[in-house]
Amino acid sequence: MTTHPSHVRDAARAAESPQRAEEIRAADRAHVFHSWSAQRHIDPLPVAGGKGSYFWDHEGRSYLDLASQFVNLNIGHGHPAVIEAVERQARQLCTVAPTFASEPRGTAARLISDLAPGDLDRVFFTNGGAEANEHAVRMARLTTGRPKILAAYRSYHGATATTINLTGDPRRWPSDNGTAGVAHFFGPFLYRSPFHATTEREECERALDHLESTIVMEGPSTIAAVIIEPVVGTGGVIVPPEGYLASVRELCDEHGILMIADEVMTGFGRTGSWFAVDNWGVKPDLLTFAKGVNSGYVPLGGVLISERVAAQFDDRPYPGGLTYSGHPLACAAAVATLEAMAAEGMVEHAAWLGEHVLGPGLRELAERHPSVGEVRGLGVMWALELVRDRDSREMLVPYAAAPADAEPVNQVMAACRKRGVWPFATANRIHVVPPCNLSEAEARDGLAVLDEALCVADAYTT
Amino acid sequence: MTTHPSHVRDAARAAESPQRAEEIRAADRAHVFHSWSAQRHIDPLPVAGGKGSYFWDHEGRSYLDLASQFVNLNIGHGHPAVIEAVERQARQLCTVAPTFASEPRGTAARLISDLAPGDLDRVFFTNGGAEANEHAVRMARLTTGRPKILAAYRSYHGATATTINLTGDPRRWPSDNGTAGVAHFFGPFLYRSPFHATTEREECERALDHLESTIVMEGPSTIAAVIIEPVVGTGGVIVPPEGYLASVRELCDEHGILMIADEVMTGFGRTGSWFAVDNWGVKPDLLTFAKGVNSGYVPLGGVLISERVAAQFDDRPYPGGLTYSGHPLACAAAVATLEAMAAEGMVEHAAWLGEHVLGPGLRELAERHPSVGEVRGLGVMWALELVRDRDSREMLVPYAAAPADAEPVNQVMAACRKRGVWPFATANRIHVVPPCNLSEAEARDGLAVLDEALCVADAYTT
Repeated sequence: MTTHPSHVRDAARAAESPQRAEEIRAADRAHVFHSWSAQRHIDPLPVAGGKGSYFWDHEGRSYLDLASQFVNLNIGHGHPAVIEAVERQARQLCTVAPTFASEPRGTAARLISDLAPGDLDRVFFTNGGAEANEHAVRMARLTTGRPKILAAYRSYHGATATTINLTGDPRRWPSDNGTAGVAHFFGPFLYRSPFHATTEREECERALDHLESTIVMEGPSTIAAVIIEPVVGTGGVIVPPEGYLASVRELCDEHGILMIADEVMTGFGRTGSWFAVDNWGVKPDLLTFAKGVNSGYVPLGGVLISERVAAQFDDRPYPGGLTYSGHPLACAAAVATLEAMAAEGMVEHAAWLGEHVLGPGLRELAERHPSVGEVRGLGVMWALELVRDRDSREMLVPYAAAPADAEPVNQVMAACRKRGVWPFATANRIHVVPPCNLSEAEARDGLAVLDEALCVADAYTT
Repeated sequence: MTTHPSHVRDAARAAESPQRAEEIRAADRAHVFHSWSAQRHIDPLPVAGGKGSYFWDHEGRSYLDLASQFVNLNIGHGHPAVIEAVERQARQLCTVAPTFASEPRGTAARLISDLAPGDLDRVFFTNGGAEANEHAVRMARLTTGRPKILAAYRSYHGATATTINLTGDPRRWPSDNGTAGVAHFFGPFLYRSPFHATTEREECERALDHLESTIVMEGPSTIAAVIIEPVVGTGGVIVPPEGYLASVRELCDEHGILMIADEVMTGFGRTGSWFAVDNWGVKPDLLTFAKGVNSGYVPLGGVLISERVAAQFDDRPYPGGLTYSGHPLACAAAVATLEAMAAEGMVEHAAWLGEHVLGPGLRELAERHPSVGEVRGLGVMWALELVRDRDSREMLVPYAAAPADAEPVNQVMAACRKRGVWPFATANRIHVVPPCNLSEAEARDGLAVLDEALCVADAYTT
């Protein structure tokens, strides 16, 4: 790929002896237990630093971050305004008990409320997205007095007890206790339609019919909430058909069910709007967030609460909390992040980049590469669905594959990394989920590398 | 209380117009949803800053922090080494996906492992204590293949689905789903003995007998783990009798049950040892932590994992994870915190302070004040159990009291605050849980104020 003097220079400056990288690797292997991994079968790359859309290791190699780390780095690495805010707040006050008020906490809550749709005017802060969903579910159950939550297959909502049971992908299975008061439904997904539909419109109608039938069979009076990722994230960047979310909202209203939008991945610019629900003008009763709220510079998540739900806890205590709720350092990072995103027009840029560069560019790749079954996305949230055969749509890596079966996608990733580009791989897909402020030139560099790497996948097609 | 020039000067310097405090209060009231609260019935004090054992508001008032915020600030406010580490790491790299290695993550894991007892040599990092317990429970269930967890009444383990169901205090009730695979037992608590015991030794024997009976009746082959706070925290600073924890360890071994020590509150110096289990030489299979690990300067928690449990996930993937696992900023703060605590001898100081100043001082108060039923604690972790009558031991605030019934303890707290001291109040108790580096003079100032404030409680005695 093209040489970008600044990040190459930064990476070279950060380069230390190979021995230093080995020491870091050794400490990691001896003492760090990694998420979602068979611990003996991983070899985590030590990352030394980053700037903008690039990060680098300790040996002078840099990578274009098309994964935004874990789809959290909406503002890019090392944004000076956020770093400065963290430094300033660290000197002022790092931590304060949730019983107090603090300036950054109130300001962050006000900014987030101002950006949020509808009457989502109160914020309960958590440390991350899983906790946010835990609390949203509790609020919904206590508000309605009903036990059950409907959640979608192909969803991911977190790894705590409630949230892993809400989750609709294989990560749930080892922790599924079958008793968490969750029922699952199928969302619209035309490319692999659970409803035998052949058009977007038909998929939408049938998905709504299916959801309504599920509500009827489960019993509306037993259902506290429907939780939904407005654009499905790790499950495949599945964009809902026009009208779907608005009709889900109507179904919920009809049956006295609350609507929870899980915007942990989609919130704060990822889809080219501040919130994904804004793309369809939908107003949920509860909206959960994390990641993009401060790009993960300091762990932070939260629940945006509508007036109706908040009012439930005006006079009776809300039975939940945590020591770091509204952490000053995390909130100061959020304030700086949201202000910088607004000042630099990052959300508009993300929308433009999706429409004019990433979308067209990825579709062009799909034309050239038989392994690409479908390109889906919007803003800076895209997936390449890889297949062995375009007609049968057989997945390049089967659903719920054993690690060994993931080899074809691992090889595509390896080809990208070798060329200095780091997308996000999951199941049979490559997700292209860069920072919102990725430049057009960086996007084109990334697309060029993907173009080469997809030849690896093509070799598996029949 | 005595004037301490430095914090009074700092507070005065931070003082802004009353209008500024009002703005912060207004943003908080309009947009921040607070933990464990009826939202219309609270008036959170805006906190502007802090240094050492003091914090201050925006109007020039400072408070001696005998609560360590939420019992997390073991190193005190604004420790320069930790602030510097946060600033340095913020400039270097704020966030990195859990799939990578990073220097602060590996170093923090190594330091924590080195401090930990037994073969607890691997660390799975989370954002806080609740998540740590969620994952420890999952690890225990997957390691043993058994479904149930035994947890103690009068415990607190967190506010997510699993952890609130583990919890043994009234905060569980609104979220209790009765299906989380948890059975509760009574731990030793001589002052309110569930076993009609009259000596520590008798309480210990009967508590062990009760636990063994519970294991037998629940079925050893159904129990994955016993989770226990080595010194019960929010539930009352209940120190176990000599020999209790070691015998729990033996019972667990006998029945193939894992032992999880929840050291979220007790870890990293609070009890005058690095870990509370060290006071009795007990080695759990899993140990959860948060709070003190970096004093909450950046949200961080984790699970220390023994070789036996870690080995379960050498070849099969651990089915859990989170975006901010091993967050570089949080880990850098942990490294600086643990190094400063060691360099400044804070753990030894906490032990000394408990034995020579806080313990004797609080017991002296108890002699003078009929409202003090019992003084319990060690290190910098103490509780005053307040009663209406020393003979009947009737609680000054009844168990699971309605907010209105908490008035007597609220008044004691108000009397402390008025005099510039901020302890921690819960149920019928005042907890004195200051930073580990509280000076002797500060401790004596705090005791003097408590002496005055307890007169308020005495007025309620019969």
